[in-house]
Amino acid sequence: MTDADEFIDLRSDTVTTPSDAMREAARDADVGDDVYRDDPTVNELERRAAEAVGTEAALYVPSGTMANQIAVHVHTEPGQELLLERESHIYRWELGGASKLSGVQTRTIDAGDRCVPTPDAVTEGLVDEDLHRPGTGLLSLENTHNYRGGTAIPVDEIAAAADAARDADVPVHLDGARVFNAAVALGVDASEIVAPVDSVTFCLSKGLGAPVGSILAGDEAFVEEARRVRKLFGGGMRQAGMIAAPGLLALENVDRLADDHANAERLAAGLDALGGVDVPEPDTNIVVVHTEDAGIAASDLVSACADAGVGCVEFDDYTTRFTTHLDVDADAVAEAVDRIGDAVATLSE
Amino acid sequence: MTDADEFIDLRSDTVTTPSDAMREAARDADVGDDVYRDDPTVNELERRAAEAVGTEAALYVPSGTMANQIAVHVHTEPGQELLLERESHIYRWELGGASKLSGVQTRTIDAGDRCVPTPDAVTEGLVDEDLHRPGTGLLSLENTHNYRGGTAIPVDEIAAAADAARDADVPVHLDGARVFNAAVALGVDASEIVAPVDSVTFCLSKGLGAPVGSILAGDEAFVEEARRVRKLFGGGMRQAGMIAAPGLLALENVDRLADDHANAERLAAGLDALGGVDVPEPDTNIVVVHTEDAGIAASDLVSACADAGVGCVEFDDYTTRFTTHLDVDADAVAEAVDRIGDAVATLSE
Amino acid sequence: MTDADEFIDLRSDTVTTPSDAMREAARDADVGDDVYRDDPTVNELERRAAEAVGTEAALYVPSGTMANQIAVHVHTEPGQELLLERESHIYRWELGGASKLSGVQTRTIDAGDRCVPTPDAVTEGLVDEDLHRPGTGLLSLENTHNYRGGTAIPVDEIAAAADAARDADVPVHLDGARVFNAAVALGVDASEIVAPVDSVTFCLSKGLGAPVGSILAGDEAFVEEARRVRKLFGGGMRQAGMIAAPGLLALENVDRLADDHANAERLAAGLDALGGVDVPEPDTNIVVVHTEDAGIAASDLVSACADAGVGCVEFDDYTTRFTTHLDVDADAVAEAVDRIGDAVATLSE
Amino acid sequence: MTDADEFIDLRSDTVTTPSDAMREAARDADVGDDVYRDDPTVNELERRAAEAVGTEAALYVPSGTMANQIAVHVHTEPGQELLLERESHIYRWELGGASKLSGVQTRTIDAGDRCVPTPDAVTEGLVDEDLHRPGTGLLSLENTHNYRGGTAIPVDEIAAAADAARDADVPVHLDGARVFNAAVALGVDASEIVAPVDSVTFCLSKGLGAPVGSILAGDEAFVEEARRVRKLFGGGMRQAGMIAAPGLLALENVDRLADDHANAERLAAGLDALGGVDVPEPDTNIVVVHTEDAGIAASDLVSACADAGVGCVEFDDYTTRFTTHLDVDADAVAEAVDRIGDAVATLSE
Repeated sequence: MTDADEFIDLRSDTVTTPSDAMREAARDADVGDDVYRDDPTVNELERRAAEAVGTEAALYVPSGTMANQIAVHVHTEPGQELLLERESHIYRWELGGASKLSGVQTRTIDAGDRCVPTPDAVTEGLVDEDLHRPGTGLLSLENTHNYRGGTAIPVDEIAAAADAARDADVPVHLDGARVFNAAVALGVDASEIVAPVDSVTFCLSKGLGAPVGSILAGDEAFVEEARRVRKLFGGGMRQAGMIAAPGLLALENVDRLADDHANAERLAAGLDALGGVDVPEPDTNIVVVHTEDAGIAASDLVSACADAGVGCVEFDDYTTRFTTHLDVDADAVAEAVDRIGDAVATLSE
Repeated sequence: MTDADEFIDLRSDTVTTPSDAMREAARDADVGDDVYRDDPTVNELERRAAEAVGTEAALYVPSGTMANQIAVHVHTEPGQELLLERESHIYRWELGGASKLSGVQTRTIDAGDRCVPTPDAVTEGLVDEDLHRPGTGLLSLENTHNYRGGTAIPVDEIAAAADAARDADVPVHLDGARVFNAAVALGVDASEIVAPVDSVTFCLSKGLGAPVGSILAGDEAFVEEARRVRKLFGGGMRQAGMIAAPGLLALENVDRLADDHANAERLAAGLDALGGVDVPEPDTNIVVVHTEDAGIAASDLVSACADAGVGCVEFDDYTTRFTTHLDVDADAVAEAVDRIGDAVATLSE
Repeated sequence: MTDADEFIDLRSDTVTTPSDAMREAARDADVGDDVYRDDPTVNELERRAAEAVGTEAALYVPSGTMANQIAVHVHTEPGQELLLERESHIYRWELGGASKLSGVQTRTIDAGDRCVPTPDAVTEGLVDEDLHRPGTGLLSLENTHNYRGGTAIPVDEIAAAADAARDADVPVHLDGARVFNAAVALGVDASEIVAPVDSVTFCLSKGLGAPVGSILAGDEAFVEEARRVRKLFGGGMRQAGMIAAPGLLALENVDRLADDHANAERLAAGLDALGGVDVPEPDTNIVVVHTEDAGIAASDLVSACADAGVGCVEFDDYTTRFTTHLDVDADAVAEAVDRIGDAVATLSE
Repeated sequence: MTDADEFIDLRSDTVTTPSDAMREAARDADVGDDVYRDDPTVNELERRAAEAVGTEAALYVPSGTMANQIAVHVHTEPGQELLLERESHIYRWELGGASKLSGVQTRTIDAGDRCVPTPDAVTEGLVDEDLHRPGTGLLSLENTHNYRGGTAIPVDEIAAAADAARDADVPVHLDGARVFNAAVALGVDASEIVAPVDSVTFCLSKGLGAPVGSILAGDEAFVEEARRVRKLFGGGMRQAGMIAAPGLLALENVDRLADDHANAERLAAGLDALGGVDVPEPDTNIVVVHTEDAGIAASDLVSACADAGVGCVEFDDYTTRFTTHLDVDADAVAEAVDRIGDAVATLSE
C-alpha cells in the first residue's frame, strides 16, 4: 500500500534512490585514483560494462550527456555533419553541445513512430565530402527512444540503419541510455542491439538504479581516445569506486526492468480507461499521455498531478511523460492512476 | 548569333565577366585603405547598397558566404539554434561554417516548393531557452531560393515567416544572394522584401555582374559589429575601391535582370519541349531539370552538356541546374537548347 | 611503522582513500536527483562549501578541471583573452580546454617564484578591446601554486593582482584546488583569500580526502550560469549525495592539513640532507626536487622511486614532485626518505 | 616637392594606392570564376607567387589575416598549442582568431630585439602530447617583424628556429606579410627565407603596392586544403583577376623596396636628430619612435602629427610607428621630418 501522503515520483527513472545493497557496496568499495587508472572497482565496472554490451572496452563517466558528447567529439571533426533523429536526446536536450563543443552541423531525420530512420532515410541523409561540404561524420541512433515514448526498437531496424551508414564508412553511435529496457522488452541480449554500432552510451543511474554514472563503450582505440576527451570535459574522477560499486550492482538489475515495463502497462491501461486522454501502449517504462483533444495543457497536468501527489514532466505543449522505476510498485501505480484521474477530472471541469 | 565553337556557360550567374564600363570604373576608382575606412568608393558603395535594400548601413565583403557567416556570427551565441530551410545555401553549401565557426546547432524546416517556411512552421521550429536548451538565436530565410529553382518568394510570405520569429524576439537574416532577381520577378522594390528582416546578404557578383563581392546590410549597430567579424574572418581588404567601383555599376543592373528571367523562361520552354525531362517553369534566372524519369543521372547530363558546349551543374542525383545571366542572350539560349537536346538524346539512346 | 612492503604513494594528494567515516556517510546519505536539485546532501554541501570560502553560492562538480573550465566558459566570450600564470594548471594540464571549449586566447605571465603576478604585471597583461583585439575576459590565479611547489600565496598578493584586473572591469577566477592548504599555511580563513576574486575552484578530493568532486563557488548569478554549463559539459549527476556526503566530512579536514605540511617539511629536510639534490623548503604539502645538478632525469628518479616503493611524479625534465596527504604519517615519511635516498644513490652510482 | 597642404600618410604601407599600370592591368585583366578555378589571371598570380617564394603552390586570399588564419586552421587541431613570438601579428592583432576559429591554445616566446626565438627557446616551448596536453601543433614566425620595428631576421636565424620545430615534427608557418622587405634588406632571395618553413603568408597590398590581397603558399597538399578553408572563411572570390592583375605587377616591385628602406633610414636619422626621442635604426620600411623618456604619449604624438599633416599609428603607450612606402619619396620624408619635429616641439612645450 502506498500511503496517502507519500509522493509518487514518476518524473523519471533517474529519481531512483540506491538500494541498501548499493549503499553497502559504496561503503565497502575497494578504491584508488581512477585518473591514474588505479581504482579496481572502476576497472571492474568498465570490464563488466563492456561485457554487458559486448564491446572490447568501456569508460565510466558522470552522466549520459557526457557519454554522448564524448562520442560525438571522438567520432567527428568540426564542420562535419551529425545525422540523427529529429527528437533524439542529443539534439533536443543537450544544450547544443554537439555544435558548441564539437563544431558539428546537425542534420535530422523525422522517423515518426518508427523512432529509428529507415536505411533509405539514412542513405539519403548522408552527405558526401565535397568542395562545399565536409560530409557526414557520425550517425547517432537512440534505443529506447525517450521522447517518442520509450519505444524499444527491434534489433534488425537498428542494424539496418547502422549498416546504411557503415556501408558509407560513417561510424554509428547508439544513445542507449535505456538500452537494457530495450533488450528486456525485445527479449534479446543488449549485445545484440549494440553489435551493429561503433559506440554506445548506457546509464547506470536510470532504471538500473545506480546513484551516479553512465557508460560509454566501444572498441579499445575508441575508448582510449574517449578517456582523453573525458579529461578535457572534466569528467575524470578520483576514488570513483565509491559510485562504481553501486554501478556494478546496477548491472544485475537488468532482468527486473520487466517489472517496470509491466507497471508502465498497468499505468497506461489505467490512464486510458479514464477516457478523454490519448495513451499509447508503452513498450518499456515510459508512458506518454497526449491531452490535446482533452484541451488540457501539459503544464497544467503536471501542476495538477503534483498537487495530487504524482510527479511527471512536460514533454511538449500537450504531452506529459510518466516513468516507472524500481521505487514504484504495482500498488503505487494503482494509487497513481487514481490520483492522476482526480487531476484530470479537476482540469476537465 | 552564338558561334558554334563558343562555350555557353550556364553553370552559374557568378561566371559573368565584368563589362567594359565596369573595367573602366575599376581603373579610375578613387581609392584608399578601407581597413581605415578611407576608401571613398567603398564608402559610397556601402551607402548606395544600404539604400538599395532600405537599411541603415551596409558592409562590403569578399563573398556571399562570408556575408552569411558574419550574419550568423553576429546574431547568435554558441550553442543556440539556427533555424533555416532544409535546402538553404547556408545549410547545404557553406562547409558547416555556422556550426564550426559560430557553434550553433542547426534546425531545419522542409518548406517544399513554397521555399519559405509558413509562420506556423517557424513558430513550431523555435525553441525556448530552458535548462536543456539554449534556445533559437536566428531564423535565416533565402530569396530567391537557389536549390529549389530560383524561386521568388512573395513579400508577404517572407514577412509572415520573419514576423513569426521576431514576435518571439528571434532576429531574422535573409540570404538574398539573388534578392534583386526576386524583386524584379515580383515587381517590387528590394527594400520591400528586406523590410521585415534584421539583416540581408546580397551578391554584386551574380546576376548584377560585378567581378567580386557581396553586401551584408542591416542597422548601424549590426553593421558595426559585422565589420569587426569581417576582420576576424580575414575579409578586411585595402584599396577595395578597385572592385567596389564595378559594384556600384552592378547596382544599376537591377532592371536588366528581367532579360535573364525571360531567357530562363525560353530555356525552360525549350527544354520542356524536348520531352522526357521534367522542367518546372522558372520564376527567375535558374532552370532546374529533373531527369529521374528519363533515367539520366545529373552527373551524366553535366558531362554530356559540357561535351556539347554547354556548362551546367549537378544539384543532386537527378537534378541539374542551368542559370541565365548577362553574358547569355536569347540567341545563345536557343543554341543552348539545341545542344542540350543533343546531349539528352545521346544519353537516352 | 610502515611495512617494508607497503607502497608509500606520494604521487598526489588525490590518491587519498576515503576514511571509514566518509564511507559510512556515503552509505547513509539522504539523496535525491540533483539534476532536479532534489538531493539534500548536495544542497547542504553546496551551502556549506559556499560558507567555507565566503561566497553567496557554490556548485558541486566531478573534478577540479571541470570547475575551472566552467569558470572560464561563464566569465569569457570566444576570442577574448584569458590572462594567467605561465605554469598554472589551467594552462599546463587541462588539454587546452580554455581555447578548445571556450575559444579564448591565452596570455601568460611568468611570475617566477612569486607564483602570482604583480599588479603591474597584471595591468601590463590586460588587453583593451579595440578593432584588432577582443580584450581580456578573465584573469585566473592559482593558490596554492601546484607546479611551482605548492606555494601559499599571501592574501595581499592575491588581492593586489585581483584588484588590478577588477579595476579594469576584468573578472578574476582563483584556481584554489588546494586553497585550504594555502589558508592553513598562511594562518588565515580561506574566505580571506577568496574575498578579492569573483569565483573559486577548490577540490574536496585532494588533501581534504573526499573520494570525488570539486566545488566552483561565486555569487548567485555566476553559479546559476555555471550550473547550466555543468550540464553542457556533462557534469550533471543524479543521486550525487552518495559522494557529496563524504565531501561534507572533507570540509572538516581543513585543520589537519597542517599535519601534511609538517610532513612535507620533514620530507624536504630529509631529502635535502641527502645532498646532491635541490629541495626548496615547502610551504604546504608539495615537495619538489630538482636533480639537474645531480644529473638525474626526473623520469629516472620516478622509476627508481617506484622500484624502491615510493610513488612520485615527473614535473619536467629534472623536477619531480612528492605530495604528502592524510594517508601518509610521519613514520611513512621517514621511511620514504630512506627509500628515496636509496633510489638517488642507485642513480648516482 | 611635397605640397604644404598634402597629407603625408605614414600610417602603413597598406595605404599605397595602385599605380597607373596596375589600374590598366585591372581594366584589361583576363578573368573567369575563380571558385571554379577558371580565372587565368588568378591562376597565373598563384603560379608566379609560388615561384617568388620557392614553394610548390600558392593561394590568393583577400587579406594577410585570412592567410595566417587559414594556415593555423590547416596545420593544427583544436586544443593543440600554437607557439609564437609574444609580439607577433597573429597573437596581437587578429582578434584572437587562432583560438576562436581554430581552438588552439597560444604559447608565446618573448624574443626581444632578436624578434625570432632561438632554437633553444623553440625547443623549450614545444609541448609533447600526453594525457594532459594535446601537444604543439604549429610554430609561427614573423619576418619582417612588424611590432618590433620591421626587423629583417637573417635566414639562418629563421632556419634555426624552424628546424628546432621540424625536428620535433611540428610544422612551421611564416607570417611574411613583408617577407620581401626582409629579402631586400638581407640581400637574399625570398625563397631562401621561406625554404625552412612549411607555409608562408605574404602581402601584395603592403609595400609591393597592390590594391588588394595576400598570398598563402606551401606545398600542393597544403594549398589544396587551404583552398577549402578559404571557402569556409568566405574568402572565395569570383572574377578576382581584376585584383590579381595588379598583384602580378606588385610582384615586380620587390627591388624598389630598397627605396622605402632608404627613406626609412632618412626618416629615422631625421627624427633622431630632433633629440629627446628614441629612434632605433630601421632595418626596412618601419620606423618606431619611443617617447617615454620625452614624456610624450603615443596617442598625443599621433594626434599632433595628424594636425601637422603626417599620418602615423600608436603601437603602445609610448611607441609610435611610421612606415615608408611607394607613395612617399625622399622629399616627402624630409618634409615629414620637419612636420613631426614641429609636432614633437609642441608636445614638449
